[in-house]
Amino acid sequence: MKRSSKRIVHILTFITLFATLATFAPHTKAYEYWDRKVSQFDSLPVYPEDIVFLGNSITDGGHFNELFEMPNIRNRGISSDVINGVAKRLKQVTKGHPGKIFLLIGINDVSQNVTVPNLLKRYESLVDSIIAQTPETKLYLQSVMPVNHSFKRYKTLYGKDKVITEFNKGIKEIAEKKGITYIDLWPFLADGEGRLKKEYTNDGLHLSGAGYKAWTKGIEKYVRE
Amino acid sequence: MKRSSKRIVHILTFITLFATLATFAPHTKAYEYWDRKVSQFDSLPVYPEDIVFLGNSITDGGHFNELFEMPNIRNRGISSDVINGVAKRLKQVTKGHPGKIFLLIGINDVSQNVTVPNLLKRYESLVDSIIAQTPETKLYLQSVMPVNHSFKRYKTLYGKDKVITEFNKGIKEIAEKKGITYIDLWPFLADGEGRLKKEYTNDGLHLSGAGYKAWTKGIEKYVRE
Repeated sequence: MKRSSKRIVHILTFITLFATLATFAPHTKAYEYWDRKVSQFDSLPVYPEDIVFLGNSITDGGHFNELFEMPNIRNRGISSDVINGVAKRLKQVTKGHPGKIFLLIGINDVSQNVTVPNLLKRYESLVDSIIAQTPETKLYLQSVMPVNHSFKRYKTLYGKDKVITEFNKGIKEIAEKKGITYIDLWPFLADGEGRLKKEYTNDGLHLSGAGYKAWTKGIEKYVRE
Repeated sequence: MKRSSKRIVHILTFITLFATLATFAPHTKAYEYWDRKVSQFDSLPVYPEDIVFLGNSITDGGHFNELFEMPNIRNRGISSDVINGVAKRLKQVTKGHPGKIFLLIGINDVSQNVTVPNLLKRYESLVDSIIAQTPETKLYLQSVMPVNHSFKRYKTLYGKDKVITEFNKGIKEIAEKKGITYIDLWPFLADGEGRLKKEYTNDGLHLSGAGYKAWTKGIEKYVRE
């Protein structure tokens, strides 16, 4: 690599690190929210008959007990969370050895400019931790959902469609390699052009009531199997 | 009233209206979040055997099913919500005629500089709507919680301690007038100086796990009675 290219790589690495830290540093509202949720989860046990939904704001916002009419689903989504954030609080879930975990994580890492190889390194490390800590749990890896830029809301996701597609391909490969169920959410949520259907969101990233209906209907057979 | 005083009142009214609109206008993240939650609640029925927790972010953040180990509690908290916001979505709750409603709302109105008389006018109107729409529901009016300025986080609540105290006095009077149960949350949450106990929060407004434990332990007898 030429010296000028190296310098560009260094600068880009610095910018990425800075952006990540700035977005998720202590004393930001996002971190404080994460910290409060983790402190609440700390005293809420998980049992072997439970189904855990684990992820970020998309999971956080879902009333899964009501959507599936199943009292044994536990919501462990935290708004703004990233792959390493889930890894940090993983023991709260795995120590209860739940029957199933539905994992949906990574879009906030994408918006923080993490590259595909690094996304997959973090993701595989998280999956390995889950398997090591609770091998008896049936794990479901869900694809990152499509987004829709026409809402002009999440500019940090602009131009990242290929990253998302490549990331999902990698998640699928991790699942196949380890004999885990991969669930492609796109058939339930995407329009003909690979965008999150307009009627399923109001900001191009998060799900409306119709979006939660479509997602939970799509994965229902895995939840109930 | 002197002309100069009137002018000040007009200017203050304008500032308050502007601040309220700016904080809760469509196309802000807070409004989009409210709108998505409302669209999800729209398809989630409430039943006569249910207990509904109705309010803003403090309710939104609580895992009440797990905290009380009761599957029939429905969380109808929406982050950033105000008294009139709850009024707007009230029918989603009242049409199911739940057994109980635990109402906790108003701190975001306080932070938007609503005066005590207006706070109480909005609050009483909301209570009247609940009673009119579902007279068979047992309604519990919870005091607004204490806050703690030492975290230096919510500057829009600075200097509002007296407003909060007066607002709570008014809520209690509304409850007594209408024969509703009033629950003063301060004995469970406040320190000797009337601040939200440090160990119950990480930002001076929202509850940590320990805060949710203290709140739910405090109101447990009403939830189970």
